[in-house]
Amino acid sequence: MLLTTETIRGKEMVDYVADYLETIEQRQVYPDVEPGYLRSLIPEEAPDEPEAYEDVIQDIERVIMPGVTHWHSPFFFAYFPTASSFPAMLADMLCGAIGCIGFSWAASPACTELETVMLDWLGKMLRLPKDFLAGTEGQGGGVIQGTASEATLVALLAARSRIVKQIQAHDPQRSEVEIISKLVAYSSDQAHSSVERAGLIGGVRMKKMSTDGKFAVCGETFRKTLEEDKASGLIPFYFCATLGTTPSCAFDRITELGPICNAEGMWMHIDAAYAGSAFICPEFRPLLDGVEFADSFNFNPHKWLLVNFDCSTMWVKRRADIIGAFKMDPLYLKHDHQESGTCIHWQIPLGRRFRSLKLWFVFRMYGLRGLQHVGLAKEFERLVRNDERFEICADVVLGLVCFRLKGSNELNELLLRRINGARRVHLVPCQLAGAFVLRFAVCSRTTESRHAQEAWRHISELASELLRGQKR
Amino acid sequence: MLLTTETIRGKEMVDYVADYLETIEQRQVYPDVEPGYLRSLIPEEAPDEPEAYEDVIQDIERVIMPGVTHWHSPFFFAYFPTASSFPAMLADMLCGAIGCIGFSWAASPACTELETVMLDWLGKMLRLPKDFLAGTEGQGGGVIQGTASEATLVALLAARSRIVKQIQAHDPQRSEVEIISKLVAYSSDQAHSSVERAGLIGGVRMKKMSTDGKFAVCGETFRKTLEEDKASGLIPFYFCATLGTTPSCAFDRITELGPICNAEGMWMHIDAAYAGSAFICPEFRPLLDGVEFADSFNFNPHKWLLVNFDCSTMWVKRRADIIGAFKMDPLYLKHDHQESGTCIHWQIPLGRRFRSLKLWFVFRMYGLRGLQHVGLAKEFERLVRNDERFEICADVVLGLVCFRLKGSNELNELLLRRINGARRVHLVPCQLAGAFVLRFAVCSRTTESRHAQEAWRHISELASELLRGQKR
Repeated sequence: MLLTTETIRGKEMVDYVADYLETIEQRQVYPDVEPGYLRSLIPEEAPDEPEAYEDVIQDIERVIMPGVTHWHSPFFFAYFPTASSFPAMLADMLCGAIGCIGFSWAASPACTELETVMLDWLGKMLRLPKDFLAGTEGQGGGVIQGTASEATLVALLAARSRIVKQIQAHDPQRSEVEIISKLVAYSSDQAHSSVERAGLIGGVRMKKMSTDGKFAVCGETFRKTLEEDKASGLIPFYFCATLGTTPSCAFDRITELGPICNAEGMWMHIDAAYAGSAFICPEFRPLLDGVEFADSFNFNPHKWLLVNFDCSTMWVKRRADIIGAFKMDPLYLKHDHQESGTCIHWQIPLGRRFRSLKLWFVFRMYGLRGLQHVGLAKEFERLVRNDERFEICADVVLGLVCFRLKGSNELNELLLRRINGARRVHLVPCQLAGAFVLRFAVCSRTTESRHAQEAWRHISELASELLRGQKR
Repeated sequence: MLLTTETIRGKEMVDYVADYLETIEQRQVYPDVEPGYLRSLIPEEAPDEPEAYEDVIQDIERVIMPGVTHWHSPFFFAYFPTASSFPAMLADMLCGAIGCIGFSWAASPACTELETVMLDWLGKMLRLPKDFLAGTEGQGGGVIQGTASEATLVALLAARSRIVKQIQAHDPQRSEVEIISKLVAYSSDQAHSSVERAGLIGGVRMKKMSTDGKFAVCGETFRKTLEEDKASGLIPFYFCATLGTTPSCAFDRITELGPICNAEGMWMHIDAAYAGSAFICPEFRPLLDGVEFADSFNFNPHKWLLVNFDCSTMWVKRRADIIGAFKMDPLYLKHDHQESGTCIHWQIPLGRRFRSLKLWFVFRMYGLRGLQHVGLAKEFERLVRNDERFEICADVVLGLVCFRLKGSNELNELLLRRINGARRVHLVPCQLAGAFVLRFAVCSRTTESRHAQEAWRHISELASELLRGQKR
């Protein structure tokens, strides 16, 4: 299919991509455009006849780039990192060429099998308890989801299905609807919005637990809430713990929470979307202690492990729990090796890409040691702490620094507006215990000390200007 | 980032991909491996140190290819097609390089805006009613989902949320749980398994409507069922119609069903996952008549419109219905243009890739005329009809031929087993009115008349052998 012209164009795109990434520092990190900017730049309808290839390519700079927020700029400190690496991009090209839809073992054995084995590799890198690995005879194993939101939802649905079956086994008279109406799921009040959304989708109550001074859920609070809820006739069935919350990278106390969940027969899911990648480093692995109590665990290699989006890895201890909640068996999906392919039927979409190739290429071309790096956050924290006008608002554990000007929320909102208005760096805020806080997340793989230093000088100057203006 | 070595490797991958696709006809379409084949071919753990690049690349042929079902082989006639084209692959490379997570307008304005405009382009290509387009002032618009399963689920959840709000507006005493316990959704007994699954996930009753001689749901049956269900106190709220069912490419009679749904205040979703691409051809557009009654419509350009997986396009008439069912507003996602970005919050995952680039490249590099082609199914149908031993089991409308040997299901199961066992072509079966039927789907973009002819000669010979064996 890719004849000579096509390969030439493919190679030109390789050059464009390389050039874009090599010179990204020179682009303004956040665009100047206003909503609706793009519609007026292109025709109102698709062309009837093919357009010249050159016109399409030129429009990348004319139409697309002016509206791009450059997530891989070393001056991008917003949200959380999204990974980008050359081995992952190579693997994605191969994935596109094979172009299989891996919805069963037969639809592409390599797709299913590599995924299972790569999740075992990664599970071992994290030193997950053996229960979570598939091996050749395990009951558990891993699967690649698109995003952590999907993992949270899949775990909640599996937990819902399990508790309904358990209760009906004792008491066949009780209807599913009646049982679901009594169920209650829990998460931290710091949990990602997708956790609340999972409750909404699953049609179950979701309670947000209040957190301690470190923005973590602790055992005592949880136990008290459970007692109250059970006393009022509710059925606690699911707890979604967060390791590395989105606002401040806080860690729920899973060594306290896990035993409670186990004793109550509740499903404990751990969402470590951002922080999970750090657990491959021995010095951060203690943060994962308590995972042995969990039923399922998830994190995003596409955040911080050099695997391009989307690749969210999820492990469960008992595959049967997940499969039981979802499996459908139409004839067109039946084949001779029906029970093979451990990572099928574990997700919301039926179709799936060959995403494990990205993991395979990245693990092999970097090696475990090449992946064990954590960023510049401590350095930025020191800069902030040396400036008396500012305060640090949460422990800096991994690559996120939460800070603010001492003073009102309005003042900090103004500061953020000026920072993002100047377009030199890009940050987003969060709310911590009622305070408007600025989040500095080390994101791009190309962010070096000099970028963090420069970002701080710039922020500090804008703060000086702002404070001078306030005094006047 | 991509330094010289990296660009050289990128270009080598372009060559590998081109070579793979050019010579794919020489590969055996379905692999010989047994379940578990891959684990023994690679180490049990990730390497500590980087491996040689050459070793990684060589393992594509050693480890991966022996286990690949080649979906783009011209001898692949299983399931439904999955699209593959050079412009889409180019766009995917660019998407990987930009590597943004488009979960809000601010996270990458170009990503959000191009998606909305491309869905308008495609909507116009399909001549969708204007209600479904965003334009600059419309209430509707389109979004790219990963798969049709997600579109079906999102529509069901939006419908569930809408009906609960409507009932509670009249009768605030009724609880959400009680209302949900009365809800009933409908689909065809020929609908894709993901429709039943959407009901399971949403925690609502799902009824499968029986179909007529053409495997279609018709108005009369539907009306009768609704009356019965309402009489027994249930609340019909959602109908998922299928245009082009998975087993036989049948078309539910939406011109009859639509007015009923509208009169009952039910949400009608149309799933045209496979067939939808054909509606850009004027001769097939009448099959979409009745879409004006729908609340939402979905099809998969990744099946048949040359856009590589995943790209499932969904339109709704009232964006507010979908957004209302899902929206969460954590501070870290707030920005100055909060209400911009029509296609956000319409899906299960929060994060999203820059998939509209694929549509843009494909539409422009092929042009509408370059996309308006339908396959060789009619030619294959004639071959089958000329052989008295066989029968055609459903109308051949687009690219799917359902056929079988006259005789028992066992006989046809045996035939299919021999076909797939011989590895020359690959097919899957379906069940139609109790009969075991073989599905011949024209899939690869490179399938020509000679491949269909050769496939038929081969199938016909295997049938002769089988029938000779039976006589003995």
